[in-house]
Amino acid sequence: MEQPIRIVVDAMGGDFSPTNDVLGAVQAAVADPEIQVILVGQEDKINEVFQKHNVDPKVLTVIHASEVIRMTDSPASSVRSKQDSSIVVGCKMVREGKADAFVSAGNTGAVATSATFNIGRLKGVERPTMGTFLPNEAGITTLFDVGAFVDSKPSHLLGFATMASVYVENIYGIINPTVALLTVGEEDEKGGKTVKETAELLRQSGLNFIGNVEGRDILKGKSHIVICDGFTGNIVLKFGESFPKFMRHMLIEYSKKGFINKLKVLLAKGVLKQALKPLDYQEYGGVPLLGVNGVCIIGHGSSTPYAIANMVKRAKNMVRTNINGKIEERLKVIQTKA
Amino acid sequence: MEQPIRIVVDAMGGDFSPTNDVLGAVQAAVADPEIQVILVGQEDKINEVFQKHNVDPKVLTVIHASEVIRMTDSPASSVRSKQDSSIVVGCKMVREGKADAFVSAGNTGAVATSATFNIGRLKGVERPTMGTFLPNEAGITTLFDVGAFVDSKPSHLLGFATMASVYVENIYGIINPTVALLTVGEEDEKGGKTVKETAELLRQSGLNFIGNVEGRDILKGKSHIVICDGFTGNIVLKFGESFPKFMRHMLIEYSKKGFINKLKVLLAKGVLKQALKPLDYQEYGGVPLLGVNGVCIIGHGSSTPYAIANMVKRAKNMVRTNINGKIEERLKVIQTKA
Repeated sequence: MEQPIRIVVDAMGGDFSPTNDVLGAVQAAVADPEIQVILVGQEDKINEVFQKHNVDPKVLTVIHASEVIRMTDSPASSVRSKQDSSIVVGCKMVREGKADAFVSAGNTGAVATSATFNIGRLKGVERPTMGTFLPNEAGITTLFDVGAFVDSKPSHLLGFATMASVYVENIYGIINPTVALLTVGEEDEKGGKTVKETAELLRQSGLNFIGNVEGRDILKGKSHIVICDGFTGNIVLKFGESFPKFMRHMLIEYSKKGFINKLKVLLAKGVLKQALKPLDYQEYGGVPLLGVNGVCIIGHGSSTPYAIANMVKRAKNMVRTNINGKIEERLKVIQTKA
Repeated sequence: MEQPIRIVVDAMGGDFSPTNDVLGAVQAAVADPEIQVILVGQEDKINEVFQKHNVDPKVLTVIHASEVIRMTDSPASSVRSKQDSSIVVGCKMVREGKADAFVSAGNTGAVATSATFNIGRLKGVERPTMGTFLPNEAGITTLFDVGAFVDSKPSHLLGFATMASVYVENIYGIINPTVALLTVGEEDEKGGKTVKETAELLRQSGLNFIGNVEGRDILKGKSHIVICDGFTGNIVLKFGESFPKFMRHMLIEYSKKGFINKLKVLLAKGVLKQALKPLDYQEYGGVPLLGVNGVCIIGHGSSTPYAIANMVKRAKNMVRTNINGKIEERLKVIQTKA
């Protein structure tokens, strides 16, 4: 029998901690005997959730961490100063070989920072990268980077594209996935110096680079992977996430105009919800931070227990497929070429 | 009686030229006797539209321009090489005082380039800026810049904020409109050097700067004006524009799953269309290029005659309120402070 995969779940992350984190971790532990779930966080708070929800504490392990990095804390300084926080303790467990993966719905910047410094980078990685998944007309587009670090050099962007390609190939089973570079025009001359130099690197990389795409092409699904700097990616991601809420608002305004409108909106709402289900981040269960020497999944602040459980599943999948070994191999090939 | 406002309409711009441009220009000319519309483009093509649609050619003036800058042409080189194109000829008419405004649904980059070089910049303007209008939960957000030029320095961004403030104040009648800076986190430390320096300039500017906002705040309407570099703004704009089409696609997919679904979607579609009407770019009728020494409005490539007519209306409004005089005054105040 294979060794169980040891996944640390941050009990103190997200807007509904520790309840959602604990319940999600329990869900994942109960559902899959191949996983050993380790909850890290304030023990008394975790136990309260156990008691309230009648959880058998034996389904997982609890490791106490006394401090909490809040959603509003400054990433760099909180990771430095709160050495006994779940985000620091969990990452260190991965570095020390006591766990295979770290999963958190906490402060995104803090998790990325802690994973980069406390787990460490893979060989050949200049910058770790965080991606996201957007539905498109043909399936799913993965967008890298969405904000692990804000300023990106062409060599960083090449690294993001390489790691993303390995990820999509191994996790989604798409052989030789297409890669496009996000810019303001399809012509090579647009987008400035960084875009031009990155396009040149991508062309020579041996990745399946199909050229530049524009903002309007993301949801069209012109390519499996879209590459951009973390600043742009983060803004696109958050702008996109705000769209369903905006639509709800517009529908409510419309329904206020009369009883018939209200009825129509009631009917339309269900349809919209169903049709837009592929947009639901919970199904994707968090986004991977690629390039660190261990598996790290970062979830949405408002993650439900279901989303947390899906993050654990995704982490297991990444460990099983040895995604990191494959990333290192691929980076070696690309760097030999450059 | 006041002098008529002379507005040049590019007859050869957009995906449906010259038909939509000509019909829109005619609509505007007939509707408002205070406007004198001048169509610039290939005379034979314009006359064909006149004949086909029974237009009385006396309602406007036609100026022949033999060349056409295509939507796919490279902006810089086409403006240089096609000196007898409608986009170059029209802008030169504004420079020479033969017209007050230039309106085009043509190649955005070419119009911006031609206006900048052939009309020239206002006093105190480092970089002209192009904005867009996005509906939000409270009204309208204006986003500047959306791609007039891709790399922006802090002083450029300060200029964009100043021009946008004057525009929103005078065209929308919002006194002392709020200004926010688009970045990846509300904290000042995020977003890198340009964002930090720009925030500092904005704080000292005397504009109504409310701080940094994130991608998710644009549609929430946290501020009247959102400032960002042209690269980010262009991607956000085009990503947002692709959303309605993506939704239609998802609804069609959903309706394919059965007859009941089909019926539901039919019902939902009408509601959505009504509820999302504020998203319709045609109502806004193009976006202004601010900072050039004359009024210039750039429309969507797929502009309908209705959208073109609205662009002409907007241009008239900008001329009447002497928006450029007010921009120069405000820039003088801000530059004295800096």
